[in-house]
Amino acid sequence: MSKQYRVAVVGATGAVGHEMRAILAQRRFPISQILPLASARSAGIELEFGSECVECVELGRDSFQGVDLALFSAGSSISRDYAPIARDAGCVVIDNSATWRMDPDVPLIVPEVNPEDAGWHRGIIANPNCSTIQMVAALKPLHDEARIKRVVVSTYQAVSGTGAKAITELIRQSDEVLEGTSPLIEVYPYQIAFNCLPHIDAFLPDGSTKEEQKMVDETQKIMGDSTIAVTATCVRVPVYNGHSESVNVEFERDLSPERARELLAAAPGIEVRDEPAGILYPMPITASGTDPVYVGRIRRDPTVAHGLNLWVVADNVRKGAALNAVQIAELLHERDLIRVLR
Amino acid sequence: MSKQYRVAVVGATGAVGHEMRAILAQRRFPISQILPLASARSAGIELEFGSECVECVELGRDSFQGVDLALFSAGSSISRDYAPIARDAGCVVIDNSATWRMDPDVPLIVPEVNPEDAGWHRGIIANPNCSTIQMVAALKPLHDEARIKRVVVSTYQAVSGTGAKAITELIRQSDEVLEGTSPLIEVYPYQIAFNCLPHIDAFLPDGSTKEEQKMVDETQKIMGDSTIAVTATCVRVPVYNGHSESVNVEFERDLSPERARELLAAAPGIEVRDEPAGILYPMPITASGTDPVYVGRIRRDPTVAHGLNLWVVADNVRKGAALNAVQIAELLHERDLIRVLR
Repeated sequence: MSKQYRVAVVGATGAVGHEMRAILAQRRFPISQILPLASARSAGIELEFGSECVECVELGRDSFQGVDLALFSAGSSISRDYAPIARDAGCVVIDNSATWRMDPDVPLIVPEVNPEDAGWHRGIIANPNCSTIQMVAALKPLHDEARIKRVVVSTYQAVSGTGAKAITELIRQSDEVLEGTSPLIEVYPYQIAFNCLPHIDAFLPDGSTKEEQKMVDETQKIMGDSTIAVTATCVRVPVYNGHSESVNVEFERDLSPERARELLAAAPGIEVRDEPAGILYPMPITASGTDPVYVGRIRRDPTVAHGLNLWVVADNVRKGAALNAVQIAELLHERDLIRVLR
Repeated sequence: MSKQYRVAVVGATGAVGHEMRAILAQRRFPISQILPLASARSAGIELEFGSECVECVELGRDSFQGVDLALFSAGSSISRDYAPIARDAGCVVIDNSATWRMDPDVPLIVPEVNPEDAGWHRGIIANPNCSTIQMVAALKPLHDEARIKRVVVSTYQAVSGTGAKAITELIRQSDEVLEGTSPLIEVYPYQIAFNCLPHIDAFLPDGSTKEEQKMVDETQKIMGDSTIAVTATCVRVPVYNGHSESVNVEFERDLSPERARELLAAAPGIEVRDEPAGILYPMPITASGTDPVYVGRIRRDPTVAHGLNLWVVADNVRKGAALNAVQIAELLHERDLIRVLR
């Protein structure tokens, strides 16, 4: 497999785009040419790629001629408009937006969970929501052993999920609160510094949010099992980077915490951090900047037959977005699937 | 009822003790004399009580002679040693520590939930854990209507629950992180600024924490129903004041979100903040400094028969500690129970 690819990164200047470029270089993805694409505003600026500098080009209808693979992270409307254009030009798209995730013709992939779905792509592959990726990565080895019936999840989501401007807002507002001035509110509907917002993405008619609904729908699609019941409450917390999740799981068959630890320790991409005696558990500040999905606080929930509680933490910009997208690219490369199957 | 009482506040200089003095004065509890008690270190210092200043006295074995009522908030060992001494001196004790809560001879009271339990006190009444108080206050009106079978709760707890030194630590660490220096860790096992710690109080052999076990045991005792199943995950978040809780409830009978809103709106001490269209939901920064328990994000959980999700927020130092203790004192006064029944 000495193939090399021309790879475009759409939304190259954003937080996830930045991470995508860094991870492609770090993991030495076989690239013959990298093409950073962005809005007219960013065209011409020089972006890092490994030890090189590459000029950012304005995204246009002709951007994908001769491009083999495009990683999109530029928002839903760009994905809706440009992913089909890229695909029609013969380029395989890995899209980080919500646009294509629930399309039955588009595989939704976490490489540790459902790599086989890469086999039926038709030019567009969707990268799941950050909160979903880390949860399903932790749940898959347990599901294979004891079958999940129901999940009740509450999230503690970092501001980096919203983008670079939200990180700036948390820094600025924290400063303002510490100085005793009234914090300026720009990105979220309310102050996020020293606060919790039970509100991520738009509200739906049933009172849930789109973010919560994504955790329901995407989990079923990735796990390939529409009988897995998920109910979610998604909350933004004043953390820069690293999503945490309190996950309550009801299994069909018995699964002891010891066996769950064993299965998770052997699972790809998972790191068990679970030693109460040593005060060891996953936290966003230690997960941030690293690749694994960390699982800890594994214990029985005695209020239901075959119940477990878990605490799952991961870097939402890496495993929750950029790293997972690059891992999908690696999977496609390994299986020689970087070509549009019609 | 023109009775007036000599009231002691044990731990008068702490965060909760401060709030107890303020709330006793604000709510004009009938006090003939207030007696702030604290350690030798604090003896002699002047403390505010309404518009007056009162001198703090060192706590000793003879402190309770002639005292009618004592509010304790000075830690478990002080409560263990001195509550019986106070009671034996004829003083009724309302204790904020965990020491007496599960003692079958000690009522555990949230006045909106189980006021009737005040009737059988024997000189010591326990004030529940902060996380439990706000949850049971929100659950009681729903339980009365549809009977709760099971609760899965994840908490987002403020640092004020740990005390004044934890607030100082969050401020200092936030400053240190913003300045790019390594934060000094004194109160919690790890940095709390811009982080989440899935660890409140000590770990138990089953992998849960004491804080989590309190939510199980205390809920059953306060609700007077040992069949209510509760499983909890308790998490410290970088918020100064105001605990938030994501509460998933399974009822025996159907309960619509509309009916739940109606019941909660009519319940004492509860305020419903639940208008997704108006971006209105409970948050710690708006709950802090106020009395109600706020409930919002009320929606069906379709993954279980008769399920609801709720988001419950309250000021953990007020309703979660000092206010609830003063409300117990008011209840005792109204029912003429400020006397040791033997």
